[in-house]
Amino acid sequence: MAAPAPTDFQKDRCMDAPAISRDPLSHADLNLIDRYWRAANYLSVGQIYLLDNPLLREPLQPRHIKPRLLGHWGTTPGLNFIYAHLNRMIRARDLSMIYICGPGHGGPGMVANTYLEGAYSEIYPEIGQNFDGLKKLFRQFSFPGGVPSHASPETPGSIHEGGELGYAVAHAYGSALDNPDLIVACVVGDGEAETGPLATAWHSNKFLDPVRDGAVLPILHLNGYKIANPTLLARIDKEELRSLFVGYGYDPIFVEGDDPKLMHQLMAAAMDGAFDKIHEIQTAARAAGIAARRPRWPMLVLRSPKGWTGPKEVDGKKVEGFWRSHQVPIANPRGNPEHLRLLDEWMKSYEPQALFDESGALLPEIKALAPSGERRMGANPHANGGLLKRDLKLPDYRAYAVSAPQPGGAVAEATRVMGAYLRDVMHLNADAKNFRIMGPDETASNRLDAVFDETDRVWMEEIEPFDVHLSRNGRVMEVLSEHLCQGWLEGYLLTGRHGLFSCYEAFIHIVDSMFNQHAKWLKVSRHLPWRAPVASLNYLLTSHVWRQDHNGFSHQDPGFIDLVSNKKADIIRVYLPPDANTLLWITDHCLRTYDRINVIVAGKQPAPQWLNIAEAANHCAAGVGIWAFAGNETDGEEPDVVMACAGDVPTLETLAAVALLRDSLPDLKVRVVNVVDLMTLQPAEQHPHGLSDGAFDALFTRDKPVIFAYHGYPYLIHRLTYKRANHHNIHVHGFQEEGATTTPFDMVVINALDRYHLAIDAIERASSRSDAAIETIRRFEANLKEHRRYICEHGEDMPDICEWKWSCASA
Amino acid sequence: MAAPAPTDFQKDRCMDAPAISRDPLSHADLNLIDRYWRAANYLSVGQIYLLDNPLLREPLQPRHIKPRLLGHWGTTPGLNFIYAHLNRMIRARDLSMIYICGPGHGGPGMVANTYLEGAYSEIYPEIGQNFDGLKKLFRQFSFPGGVPSHASPETPGSIHEGGELGYAVAHAYGSALDNPDLIVACVVGDGEAETGPLATAWHSNKFLDPVRDGAVLPILHLNGYKIANPTLLARIDKEELRSLFVGYGYDPIFVEGDDPKLMHQLMAAAMDGAFDKIHEIQTAARAAGIAARRPRWPMLVLRSPKGWTGPKEVDGKKVEGFWRSHQVPIANPRGNPEHLRLLDEWMKSYEPQALFDESGALLPEIKALAPSGERRMGANPHANGGLLKRDLKLPDYRAYAVSAPQPGGAVAEATRVMGAYLRDVMHLNADAKNFRIMGPDETASNRLDAVFDETDRVWMEEIEPFDVHLSRNGRVMEVLSEHLCQGWLEGYLLTGRHGLFSCYEAFIHIVDSMFNQHAKWLKVSRHLPWRAPVASLNYLLTSHVWRQDHNGFSHQDPGFIDLVSNKKADIIRVYLPPDANTLLWITDHCLRTYDRINVIVAGKQPAPQWLNIAEAANHCAAGVGIWAFAGNETDGEEPDVVMACAGDVPTLETLAAVALLRDSLPDLKVRVVNVVDLMTLQPAEQHPHGLSDGAFDALFTRDKPVIFAYHGYPYLIHRLTYKRANHHNIHVHGFQEEGATTTPFDMVVINALDRYHLAIDAIERASSRSDAAIETIRRFEANLKEHRRYICEHGEDMPDICEWKWSCASA
Repeated sequence: MAAPAPTDFQKDRCMDAPAISRDPLSHADLNLIDRYWRAANYLSVGQIYLLDNPLLREPLQPRHIKPRLLGHWGTTPGLNFIYAHLNRMIRARDLSMIYICGPGHGGPGMVANTYLEGAYSEIYPEIGQNFDGLKKLFRQFSFPGGVPSHASPETPGSIHEGGELGYAVAHAYGSALDNPDLIVACVVGDGEAETGPLATAWHSNKFLDPVRDGAVLPILHLNGYKIANPTLLARIDKEELRSLFVGYGYDPIFVEGDDPKLMHQLMAAAMDGAFDKIHEIQTAARAAGIAARRPRWPMLVLRSPKGWTGPKEVDGKKVEGFWRSHQVPIANPRGNPEHLRLLDEWMKSYEPQALFDESGALLPEIKALAPSGERRMGANPHANGGLLKRDLKLPDYRAYAVSAPQPGGAVAEATRVMGAYLRDVMHLNADAKNFRIMGPDETASNRLDAVFDETDRVWMEEIEPFDVHLSRNGRVMEVLSEHLCQGWLEGYLLTGRHGLFSCYEAFIHIVDSMFNQHAKWLKVSRHLPWRAPVASLNYLLTSHVWRQDHNGFSHQDPGFIDLVSNKKADIIRVYLPPDANTLLWITDHCLRTYDRINVIVAGKQPAPQWLNIAEAANHCAAGVGIWAFAGNETDGEEPDVVMACAGDVPTLETLAAVALLRDSLPDLKVRVVNVVDLMTLQPAEQHPHGLSDGAFDALFTRDKPVIFAYHGYPYLIHRLTYKRANHHNIHVHGFQEEGATTTPFDMVVINALDRYHLAIDAIERASSRSDAAIETIRRFEANLKEHRRYICEHGEDMPDICEWKWSCASA
Repeated sequence: MAAPAPTDFQKDRCMDAPAISRDPLSHADLNLIDRYWRAANYLSVGQIYLLDNPLLREPLQPRHIKPRLLGHWGTTPGLNFIYAHLNRMIRARDLSMIYICGPGHGGPGMVANTYLEGAYSEIYPEIGQNFDGLKKLFRQFSFPGGVPSHASPETPGSIHEGGELGYAVAHAYGSALDNPDLIVACVVGDGEAETGPLATAWHSNKFLDPVRDGAVLPILHLNGYKIANPTLLARIDKEELRSLFVGYGYDPIFVEGDDPKLMHQLMAAAMDGAFDKIHEIQTAARAAGIAARRPRWPMLVLRSPKGWTGPKEVDGKKVEGFWRSHQVPIANPRGNPEHLRLLDEWMKSYEPQALFDESGALLPEIKALAPSGERRMGANPHANGGLLKRDLKLPDYRAYAVSAPQPGGAVAEATRVMGAYLRDVMHLNADAKNFRIMGPDETASNRLDAVFDETDRVWMEEIEPFDVHLSRNGRVMEVLSEHLCQGWLEGYLLTGRHGLFSCYEAFIHIVDSMFNQHAKWLKVSRHLPWRAPVASLNYLLTSHVWRQDHNGFSHQDPGFIDLVSNKKADIIRVYLPPDANTLLWITDHCLRTYDRINVIVAGKQPAPQWLNIAEAANHCAAGVGIWAFAGNETDGEEPDVVMACAGDVPTLETLAAVALLRDSLPDLKVRVVNVVDLMTLQPAEQHPHGLSDGAFDALFTRDKPVIFAYHGYPYLIHRLTYKRANHHNIHVHGFQEEGATTTPFDMVVINALDRYHLAIDAIERASSRSDAAIETIRRFEANLKEHRRYICEHGEDMPDICEWKWSCASA
């Protein structure tokens, strides 16, 4: 192929006129693939604009145009171009491939392509492969009661919405893990590439084992512009760009230009090269049985004009190859005849009559370019992962139980006990290869290190002789990026596997917005019958607010639960197990659930154990209950005060407070209620786990003071209980945003969550002002003062004041 | 200098034995700088371990050791090494420099260095430059009532805590903007370098103008390990690493090794080279008056062992040069005599007797290496930015007022009006160069584009002839990374300037955790008398939940306000101005405040205007008030129902509901209360803006039904008002997590926030079940049904149902 003179697009960007040694596509093939692309482009424009007259068989009229024009054209032709060429690879090499569409805004393109290949009509039979189907396809897009403007759960073949940008590459790698035969094509927009999460996600190649895992083919799409600005990566020097991706560990292949015919040849050649390379890497590594080193995976860089093939200019302003093509390039064809004419001209430039037959169906010779059956990217079961999901084999959680012969009689580290259970989950599912643990360098710090008896951390870089628990095929993924942990896990779950993300509680806020988006995805998916349920996203939040005393204020934040509570009740669960045995039950439970987000908050420090495993099971199954062993109420009478608690540290302080009260004021009748499942507090109408008002009142009474010791910000308890009869008399102690580098006991004191504050509150609200009560309050206040004096002098707690002194004798 | 044989550390990493052509340090200088470094290391270890005997002048005893050992040694010697060499540069070149300590965990190092240079004792006179001062310095570290373990607000010279990792480079660039004479040295740990926000922050060089702005010298510190893992950047091939930073646009200079004497020479040479290069870049650009292209700024890569100079092995396990040195390398010197001996040996290896004089003061020849006065990094006023802050010159906001002769009589786009005001803020402060606007490619989309009449977007890459509003010295910063926008602005504010971050409401969640950390920083700073107040961090959240109907569910999330509300009341403010004039007043107000985080939520779409500018000022100053023009209550009598609203869309729907009610049921007495300042709802004891109970009851009554139309998740209103007398009768309509690509009116309908749902709720709760009431409800329900039918058929709203029909006639 001779190198033609460079176009303006090429000259603007100082690009060499590209040349390849041999044209990979015959003239006929080139013509066909171009027609396929034009069909996808035509359908994309149609979705944005047309209510009717889908094949322009009658003159285009204002009444054929939608009243509200919504959608994003700019990225779409590039997405369509890539899709067509990936189809070619799938057919030529019989590949199993899915398409992660980073620029999810280009929803019309994803819908168009899955429609062209037939997958769309199989899922939505009302959108048939005919004139009427085309009309409905166009009409439903961004239309009330129709489908959203983005690649979304409604879109076949999609596991990635892309409305919020940054997670495409992490999702892609998560999908490829443990799927050796899968190739994940991942288109990254040059806007998205500016985000932090995406900028670090390129490093995911350091965690992909070519023997065990599939391949990811990143395709950086440089169309040059965002909403109203050029993009960084499209404007930096090309050699700098190449260096960047070499630095990220890739072998970038550039496809640059704007002449479709030339670009088809270039893209076909680049794809051939990339898939050859992937094949070569995988074949070599698998033959060797182990990857000696991380391979240099290929990636593509596609530089093409934004809004490619769309109108060059509108109203005298540059549109194609500029940010003005980002959304709807021609603003008002309904009201402006010139706009209508431009739209007509634009749509006809794709020559619909050469693409669709009389009935409105795609012509068979074009359709033949799409793969068939499950090879179609819109029908690949990996993108509807619930179809492939196999339940985890779970060990009997009771086998890991801590012996707790009497409440408070034993001490254990809850997450360490959970670690032993997780080790065996790893073991039992080693063959199925469908369970992973993610964490930002905290698996050992969070005391889950028993899992390292069974597996390692995956690590594709050099491994030194003195390294510990690193290997090429470990199943624990550690990187100092909560974004990557979350993104990988989402990709892994959405393609049908299971996992757990263990994180310092404060820093899970780093992925607040990713949590939001995943919750939204699940909410929509649950209403799509064709989407099979996927495993729940399970968080273990540990190293929590009350035990980050060594790292101080920056590490103390329990607010993630508040964020979670804003999402749809169907989706979210929050568990605060008070000890190791309850944590075991909750973990086992969460690993059996689907289509949910489970948040488990549990400490890692040595702490007293309250329930034996049978009691733990009963208590957790109910979600909330009276701890009769701790209270001293008289049968058949209501107590004077309810001491409620949720969370391990609040439970300890509550029971210590109760011990103090029973010792000092034995006539005061106290009930202890422990809450494991926070959502039981909500009304039954608001959350499926919510207690009925009758059940709530039976626990918390209708009028007695409730002193509620809560793990997080106190307001959440008010918000969950504000409809309850006794709400006015619920008094919550929790985190008051007072943090410090200090002792664990001092942390609860400065937030008034300690035993003395709780006990004083109980006495003040529940007892008569007897001499004994006044004297007790005085004594507790003196203890708090003495604590402060002692700790500032000695740097440690005064044992008499903060030690755990519960004994069964007092029960 | 002859190249010596490589050490094990070098061999492990395949490093060349480095050689430089000429030793920059004389033997005497080398010896002095090494002693300075040893002094800093000694003080760092002392802070982690010692309660007493600070100079080891008596035999080390268990009683000299702290009872709780907290702190992070691993990163500290590297931080100290860099600090000593930066001091050399400051003195040699009379530089103004600050030190951003990315690995904030290395707090002992920052404290040690600012103590050595004398800045610490000037701020905290009780920590003197003598034996007693040393003892207190050691004791206070991570000690109850003392200072935190991290670089924190308490640390002189710090504007960056580093507890949550990822923001060092963004903070550094934010500090350098508009500070042409400042150099910001920014140490980045190789752990932090794995985070997303940091991975994209390297691209900040594309926004730094060498003429107008200062310089950032990034120093990537590869000590190889995180808590329990190697780091990615330390283990990838060196040429890959070099490519990565060349790709990011830097000129990396490597300093690698573990032999202190050699490393001092290498570091001195590297620093000389880097500062020469910075000087050259700035001189050339400033001579030309404009930067022709983005310069290739230098950066340093320091590869040194983790826990450098600490114990090689403890209990037979590798510690120096491995992750075991991350925190406290010798665990139990109080209880284990061998540990005590090791600690003694380690500390004495620094030869304290050769560093401090008899009185405990640093020897004068060592002290002479520190810069003096404000050149000391612990005393540079840029790191206590409030000292340099100049109030903004603000135009008279009334000049931008929208004419609103009668409520609802005019239509305006609130943020567009605000944009005109901001344009003139830009203009008035152009000389002071102390105001910037940040946004993720959304300034124009958010309709603030009037600012482009006054300034451009800053852009250091190529600028094409067809580009719009890009220039080398623009004051609007746009990048598709909320993390960068937030991080830059934090750095800019903390060094004494002003700014605004405009963002799509849903995606501000991306920086939830950065918001948390900044709020924590402000909370602590406010209690440090020596920290001068800095300008508030102002958010404009627009393109909000109710008007993202074109982007759909992924772009619809009003939950940031909930997160904000968890933080200390002193710090946070949330404003929901209902129209353009109120937005003007609020903007003007926020730009005058200090040490706060102001969240303003306002729409950008054309919307009815309610208040003239005088009314707006009165209303906003009160924060909440009765809109008498809208209600029909009888003087001296309580209304039947209170229709409350907060937010622009809820206000419109409420007033439309009231119009419907007054039309249909004129006997129903309605009061309208509009809330601008959300925190007025909280009790006065909880928030400085909170209404007294009397004032609250006067607005909302003690027992009448309140139908509250709220912008966000309804729970927040309950949480804010649960202590109020009338709380049981407040019924909140808000976002119910129902999103879609649909019309704006349909969005409020599917969340039951529309006029019909509000009116029906009011009738059901407030009126007798008269025939007229029943008939009205029936009619409104029919309208809702008709809406649904019409919209699904036509794709747009039925005008009769959703149009704004308020008129003064009905008032």
